Amino acid sequence: MKLSKMHLRTLREVPSEAEIPSHVLLLRAGMIKKIVSGVYGFMPLGYRSLRKIEGIIREEMDRAGGQEINMSAIQPAELWQESGRWYAYGPELWRLKDRSGRDFCLGPTHEEIFTDIVRNEVSSYRQLPLNLYQIQHKYRDEARPRFGLMRSREFIMKDAYTFDKSYEDLDKSYDTMYGAYERIFNRCGLTYRAVEADTGAIGGSNSHEFTALSEVGESEVAYCEKCNMAATSERAECLDAPAEDCEMLALEEVLTPGTKTIEDVANFLGLPQSRTMKALLFVTYNQEGKEDGYVAAFLRGDRELNKTKLVNALGIPEHALEFADEEKMGAETGCVGGFTGPMGLRNCKIAVDSELLGIKNLCTGACKLDHHVKNVNYGRDYEADIVADLKMLKEGDPCPVCKNPVKYARGIEVGQIFKLGTKYSESMGACYKDENMEEHHIVMGCYGIGVTRTLAAIVEQHHDGDGILWPVSVAPYHAIITIVSSGEPAQESLAEEVYDELVAAGVEALLDDRSERAGVKFKDADLLGIPVRITVGKKAGEGIVEYKLRRSPANEEVDRAEAVRRAIEFVNKEK
Amino acid sequence: MKLSKMHLRTLREVPSEAEIPSHVLLLRAGMIKKIVSGVYGFMPLGYRSLRKIEGIIREEMDRAGGQEINMSAIQPAELWQESGRWYAYGPELWRLKDRSGRDFCLGPTHEEIFTDIVRNEVSSYRQLPLNLYQIQHKYRDEARPRFGLMRSREFIMKDAYTFDKSYEDLDKSYDTMYGAYERIFNRCGLTYRAVEADTGAIGGSNSHEFTALSEVGESEVAYCEKCNMAATSERAECLDAPAEDCEMLALEEVLTPGTKTIEDVANFLGLPQSRTMKALLFVTYNQEGKEDGYVAAFLRGDRELNKTKLVNALGIPEHALEFADEEKMGAETGCVGGFTGPMGLRNCKIAVDSELLGIKNLCTGACKLDHHVKNVNYGRDYEADIVADLKMLKEGDPCPVCKNPVKYARGIEVGQIFKLGTKYSESMGACYKDENMEEHHIVMGCYGIGVTRTLAAIVEQHHDGDGILWPVSVAPYHAIITIVSSGEPAQESLAEEVYDELVAAGVEALLDDRSERAGVKFKDADLLGIPVRITVGKKAGEGIVEYKLRRSPANEEVDRAEAVRRAIEFVNKEK
Repeated sequence: MKLSKMHLRTLREVPSEAEIPSHVLLLRAGMIKKIVSGVYGFMPLGYRSLRKIEGIIREEMDRAGGQEINMSAIQPAELWQESGRWYAYGPELWRLKDRSGRDFCLGPTHEEIFTDIVRNEVSSYRQLPLNLYQIQHKYRDEARPRFGLMRSREFIMKDAYTFDKSYEDLDKSYDTMYGAYERIFNRCGLTYRAVEADTGAIGGSNSHEFTALSEVGESEVAYCEKCNMAATSERAECLDAPAEDCEMLALEEVLTPGTKTIEDVANFLGLPQSRTMKALLFVTYNQEGKEDGYVAAFLRGDRELNKTKLVNALGIPEHALEFADEEKMGAETGCVGGFTGPMGLRNCKIAVDSELLGIKNLCTGACKLDHHVKNVNYGRDYEADIVADLKMLKEGDPCPVCKNPVKYARGIEVGQIFKLGTKYSESMGACYKDENMEEHHIVMGCYGIGVTRTLAAIVEQHHDGDGILWPVSVAPYHAIITIVSSGEPAQESLAEEVYDELVAAGVEALLDDRSERAGVKFKDADLLGIPVRITVGKKAGEGIVEYKLRRSPANEEVDRAEAVRRAIEFVNKEK
Repeated sequence: MKLSKMHLRTLREVPSEAEIPSHVLLLRAGMIKKIVSGVYGFMPLGYRSLRKIEGIIREEMDRAGGQEINMSAIQPAELWQESGRWYAYGPELWRLKDRSGRDFCLGPTHEEIFTDIVRNEVSSYRQLPLNLYQIQHKYRDEARPRFGLMRSREFIMKDAYTFDKSYEDLDKSYDTMYGAYERIFNRCGLTYRAVEADTGAIGGSNSHEFTALSEVGESEVAYCEKCNMAATSERAECLDAPAEDCEMLALEEVLTPGTKTIEDVANFLGLPQSRTMKALLFVTYNQEGKEDGYVAAFLRGDRELNKTKLVNALGIPEHALEFADEEKMGAETGCVGGFTGPMGLRNCKIAVDSELLGIKNLCTGACKLDHHVKNVNYGRDYEADIVADLKMLKEGDPCPVCKNPVKYARGIEVGQIFKLGTKYSESMGACYKDENMEEHHIVMGCYGIGVTRTLAAIVEQHHDGDGILWPVSVAPYHAIITIVSSGEPAQESLAEEVYDELVAAGVEALLDDRSERAGVKFKDADLLGIPVRITVGKKAGEGIVEYKLRRSPANEEVDRAEAVRRAIEFVNKEK
């Protein structure tokens, strides 16, 4: 394609709304266009790269035995009510009504729809296993859409669903898809980790997140360099220290005026924070969105709460738990802001981090202004409604598998796979009959890839100060031929020849024939990130051009035939 | 692909909800699945055909100079308010709010979005002409979704928009796209007419509808066999007869008890209906949906009102005009149900079909119960606020171009193209600077194809009593190899060989290896409509198979190599 005919508008300035490199560069390269907050369109070059990612996904899904279908974005509320997620999904489910007032949502995921297909169309073991997938627009009414394609409200996902006869077969399907995901992200040129993940609003037993490593990512991954442990921060288990083997001392109420934080009280009493116990106070909401109770969660003073673990322990969705208004909660439960301990509370669920059971003689709030209590011990002085691992695993904490200190990395969640088991087939009644005509619930898995987010992740991992460095497999074009002086017949004709030869060899080429200064053209070529650049300049008359790879500084003068040969070889090797 | 591995569920019975062949057959062949009224998903075979249609469209759009982009389905209300269509589009615009209460719609079309791109990114004549297109889901909150993919609420459209410097350039772009549309529908195997059409909610000056001829279509096309005239029934102009050259007679009020219809009064008075004048009474609504006035439209008694022409003459959208409650309207305007004429009306807009100006001494209502008036004449006895062609052109009426009697055909609107001119570039401020730095509005065209509806139209034109007859270009697979007795080693191995040879030659083949009776397999093959069937049965041991085209009854026994050769030749010729 000739650039003079292409709709392309690159920007020199950094758009003010963009904070991370992929967002900046995709906007600057004119590849995406913001329609409204969290909603983007794809311009010609951006859409070409997006379709290449889709093509890679399609090939690998087909290879894994997937059959492509395409369901609607519009989904009737009834199916979500049946699965129980009309409530559980919370405000991110983008709801709408039709002209007759009937409720619908714009699908953020399609477990209900696919389960509905299968319960209607599958009845026999002979129809299983089954692997269905689609590549399609999804919707999430994000509270704070940000970072361009990273967290948007309309986005493209590949979602696949497997249907098996047994958990053993699910394990096989899951492993096949895991392998397909590895190939997909490898082919997209991503550096990633597959890590254990929480199952969140999707549900199910096991899950892995595929996390493209990146400083700007919103996922935190804990991993161990000694063993294979890798998990999202929400999921990573903590190892509790062995129970302390010392005597319980007598309770002692102490005056601790104005010590509203753990730091304050530890300093005031001369204790390490690890000898204190802190309270976090929450209100919970029911399905109608009304307050239906209080929760006080207790952790060691130096620990951080893992909210995902807490809602999982409570068995409620994440959006049903919010920090409480302490004054209001105090009147009903006896808690006192900054001075809350487990011993004076009423009308309130008490959730205790499992670690606290083994630690003796902690200091905690007395539920009385300016007072704390020392030597508090679980069992003797208080009990809990829930005991569970409620804390974040921190960098340097012992690995839950091998006790080696764990490390942390940041990354972008580009894919997640789930062993759903029978969660949906039970709630929605999807069964098959086995060889003996006995009925069983179908065992399901689900597998998502954020296609538009993958595009952004590729740019995060492949850019420099001048622009994008597309891997050949997903580059909008493979090569760009830059005419230094448009209007010079020798340069123009040689450039056209090189262009024609590349296109004839199956190399997707751009010809920059615009009447712009050479500097502008070079800057644009770098910004667009086309992997191979062939520059046709003053030596065109001698048949000499410059050959340069975007990812390397070397810019060599070579014969035009050599440039074409190298470009073809490079592209065929890398695509 | 082996059918034993494919998710396929065919139905013997006709689904009760389906009324037309394409809907029945696409459901019976398991190609589409109803999610909810007017919302369908595509199953593996249906999605393959759909993607082939998309591929044909993409090739022809690219050939016509189009550049593919992909904008969001979610559109902010602000853009539609700016163009004035937030109101004008009416209740078919599917509106929704985000969690913060902001208004959006699900795009039924994208003039606003594309105009917004161009006003931000195009400033110079050097960037024009420009042709941008997308293939994407669209939404229309239909009052009565019906006929499967024909009139659905979520559907796939290709929409393209051209941007030109002048109306002359628009004419060229329009002609190029017209040619592309002809190639697309030809390649899809459709028999169609390109007819003049009303511009409706899209607006603009000129428009053509591409109508696939079909008895079940909702479009009515008037055409002339003598000249080139062809137009939708909404658009087709009527030729008024020359004014009658006779004397105006004196007005005469006559008692016509109980004659509430034109037929009654004509019979009662012994007049042909063409000597009477009938009234149609409407209420109009303003942008807030409140009643804002009445309209009485008058036509010759034997004519049918063309509502599109009436709203165009009134300059209001179609949904702003509804039949009035005659009693309520009577109190305010003096009309009397069944006895309304133009002469006693007040507080009411009078719209008169142009034909009435030339007809003398008509009989019409007296605005008085059980009374009519004879010898009513325009000018002498009444005048109008609006005089326009308000009537339907009927079969046999004179062609407006050559006066030959017109014919009518029914069809399915699969595409429509519009010369928008500067409607959107003016309302939204999209301009370019010419060579002299003078600013002009960009001249636009827009071009739609209903992709999912095209799929249905193909089935309407290509089916018989046993199922679908896909044209090779859009068939989900080209050939099906049917094993008569699965389990017979000779049949199975020969079938696999034939299958492998076809696939190696680029023929997309299905292998029906299911453990079903041969009759079931033949019925399914006919229902699915795969163009070539090769049957491997008892003579497999001798290397003899049966070769049959779906569209022809001939079923020949041939050598397996001959069958493969014929299949390859047939598919390559037709695809």
